Amino acid sequence: MEDSIFTKIIKGEIPCSKIYEDEKTLAFLDIHPLTPGHSLVIPKQQVSHFDQLDEEDYNAVFETVKKVATKLKQVTGCERVCLRVEGFDVPHTHIHVYPCNSPTDFYGRTDRLQVEPDYEALNNMANKLAF
Amino acid sequence: MEDSIFTKIIKGEIPCSKIYEDEKTLAFLDIHPLTPGHSLVIPKQQVSHFDQLDEEDYNAVFETVKKVATKLKQVTGCERVCLRVEGFDVPHTHIHVYPCNSPTDFYGRTDRLQVEPDYEALNNMANKLAF
Repeated sequence: MEDSIFTKIIKGEIPCSKIYEDEKTLAFLDIHPLTPGHSLVIPKQQVSHFDQLDEEDYNAVFETVKKVATKLKQVTGCERVCLRVEGFDVPHTHIHVYPCNSPTDFYGRTDRLQVEPDYEALNNMANKLAF
Repeated sequence: MEDSIFTKIIKGEIPCSKIYEDEKTLAFLDIHPLTPGHSLVIPKQQVSHFDQLDEEDYNAVFETVKKVATKLKQVTGCERVCLRVEGFDVPHTHIHVYPCNSPTDFYGRTDRLQVEPDYEALNNMANKLAF
């Protein structure tokens, strides 16, 4: 199996704005954020479908999701944290975890994939969020 | 605290197309499906924010999410199961779990809240999904 872009991030072959890491999971900022603070939580095991993660990795991923959500609320003061799991783009489970203050925030920046990543803003945000 | 519509469903005061129930969670069909089979997984404890569920309820909810996702794949033959957590509508944690065959399926029927629920279709789907 070819390494996914996320496995390359885990191996350090591609940089990321990391906010949390433990034995089984990694959390870092999406370079095309739906809202500022938009994070991705991934298992270190490259498994395409979240429902096919083994029990330990599955539990570890959602434990990290809860930690990241709590941190996002503390740092951004957002009203709620929203989650998305789609997965048609990268065949490596990733949970989108992002701050929202209104129902429309769930849909985020609609042009996000067309905008060049703002690495300075990402690094500043990662410095505030890292734990 | 006033009972949410989901607590009323748990208490049996409002009917639902139930597909799964255990001590701590309930899964049933959304009456306004994004895609056919669109299910909601809720904790029996009425807690508005998923990240404020206690550890046992949190783990139980995501364990049920995994079971429902597996069942949705078996029954509908969908390519992936997608998840959403928003929560601005009903102040009772609910995880949207629904079958998707393409990236656009993630956004589902955009007019879903304007369409009258099709209870016959919901009951037929629940009969196939219940476990």
